[in-house]
Amino acid sequence: MEYSEIIDIFEKHDKFLILTHKSPDGDTLGSGFGLCYFLRDMGKLANVVNSDGFPDRYDFMYVDYAPQDFEPEYVIAVDIADPSLIGSGLAKYQEAGTVDLCIDHHFSNKNFAVLSHVEGDTAAAAQILYAIFKQSGRKISDIIAKCLYTGIATDTGCFKYENTTPETHLAAAELMAYDIDFANVNRKMFDVKSKGRIKIEQIVTGRMEYHIQDKCAMITITTELMESCGVDQAEFEGLASIPLSAEGVVLGITVKQRHENVFKISVRTTDEMDASAFCNYFGGGGHIRAAGCELKGTLEEVRAKLLERAEKVLLA
Amino acid sequence: MEYSEIIDIFEKHDKFLILTHKSPDGDTLGSGFGLCYFLRDMGKLANVVNSDGFPDRYDFMYVDYAPQDFEPEYVIAVDIADPSLIGSGLAKYQEAGTVDLCIDHHFSNKNFAVLSHVEGDTAAAAQILYAIFKQSGRKISDIIAKCLYTGIATDTGCFKYENTTPETHLAAAELMAYDIDFANVNRKMFDVKSKGRIKIEQIVTGRMEYHIQDKCAMITITTELMESCGVDQAEFEGLASIPLSAEGVVLGITVKQRHENVFKISVRTTDEMDASAFCNYFGGGGHIRAAGCELKGTLEEVRAKLLERAEKVLLA
Repeated sequence: MEYSEIIDIFEKHDKFLILTHKSPDGDTLGSGFGLCYFLRDMGKLANVVNSDGFPDRYDFMYVDYAPQDFEPEYVIAVDIADPSLIGSGLAKYQEAGTVDLCIDHHFSNKNFAVLSHVEGDTAAAAQILYAIFKQSGRKISDIIAKCLYTGIATDTGCFKYENTTPETHLAAAELMAYDIDFANVNRKMFDVKSKGRIKIEQIVTGRMEYHIQDKCAMITITTELMESCGVDQAEFEGLASIPLSAEGVVLGITVKQRHENVFKISVRTTDEMDASAFCNYFGGGGHIRAAGCELKGTLEEVRAKLLERAEKVLLA
Repeated sequence: MEYSEIIDIFEKHDKFLILTHKSPDGDTLGSGFGLCYFLRDMGKLANVVNSDGFPDRYDFMYVDYAPQDFEPEYVIAVDIADPSLIGSGLAKYQEAGTVDLCIDHHFSNKNFAVLSHVEGDTAAAAQILYAIFKQSGRKISDIIAKCLYTGIATDTGCFKYENTTPETHLAAAELMAYDIDFANVNRKMFDVKSKGRIKIEQIVTGRMEYHIQDKCAMITITTELMESCGVDQAEFEGLASIPLSAEGVVLGITVKQRHENVFKISVRTTDEMDASAFCNYFGGGGHIRAAGCELKGTLEEVRAKLLERAEKVLLA
């Protein structure tokens, strides 16, 4: 779609509901609230919803937000590639025809909405929204700029990852002209961890094993460990990048117990190895640098299977 | 100085020696090698030197570098605020009149060179050099762009810190147009740690204590600990940011033993507290968010002094 068509939609309708994806991150929330405030500044009614609620971690984007009371007339999904990501708390919007417009940056977008605007090469949904807002010629407020910056920064690891483009930096340069206190946003997003998370990372890192001439690092997280350390289960998400942080490691494997004799395997690789091919071998899949699979057996059996295959691949 | 005066200097002389600061970081090396390659592309002779040698960690900037054989005629210091930072290995350049030009971005620059170009508001020395190179109208090579990007990224924590400006992002946007493999640079600079460092962070984090309604976190590093974990002493540098990474902590204190009954104290604070004032109380000093002091006594005495003062300040 042309940006002008999207702006026409904003102008033509009056009562918007904005859907963000479940397990919300900085980009879906930054895009959702950025769009909500933009529409409200246009004189429209607009609300943001999330199946899982809004986490405290991102509250600087919605500390002054209050939902408005109205019956939605137009539904926009932001940063949502697949209706299943809308979440069970908003299940009615998983049905065909219920979402009017989806604005997203995932190549894998399922085109589930009536209208879809997908830019797979753009680093963040918030970066697309910024381009749309610019094209509208309307001024944006500081809080809109802060939401969009947060979306862009979080989805690029603060401009660190491969998805960052010159346009990403240009958007950041322009958004910094607003009063957004970006250094504090970045501190919250990238430097601060909960005490529980610090404890878990400390325990898990202490259990890291190096194998195959130290080219492979592995961490194992058993249900026993998760239960014993007295930290919320949600804090055990996203640990898979830890093994690959060790110098010289090209294959990082995280083994996480799901049930008795069932383990979820997360694989991360440097550009010297194909994570997807490694996981395909075990019936899993994913991307070239990040993939996963499921393995059955005792922890010892699962470890042995993984290391046997790793040795074949790494010493080939 | 005007950029054109600096470009005139590059054109007028033929044999350049470029000084980088001791304990070299990404900015001094990125600036030094970026400038060296630029001068060589102009047909000049140019070498980079460092009192401590060039670390493996940054070798992607100088893997193809070979020193040239010549007697230097013009000496340029980059990213060096004070002659003492030139280091003992290059002691003769600590004497007045030996450095012809200094290009730097530290407000605290001592103006020790014959000519100084200091931009205290610019995030990195490499960002200044990029502006100079642009003004020259000469094309820069991919390796020059990679050196400059590395300098800018490392001195800003990958565009995360307060020193980042819109111009920093604009420079990054332009440098990304070259073949610089920035995502791999960033992975090496920000995500990869030595196994020794991982071990130390793991041990130190495990010893973190929370005090004063969890507003203060403290880590203590004794010589006994440093000796017992079998890791190079140099790996114990730069741990002071760890205590402040815990959510809710506004005062992070790192107590590191220097000798029997002598401790170096590093203090980091959020914008809710003044680190410099805290350390001034103990006869130390520094910046508003990062400061230090030295305390004498047993570890228990030093901890008690620090916590007593912290309680007074935090519960005031």
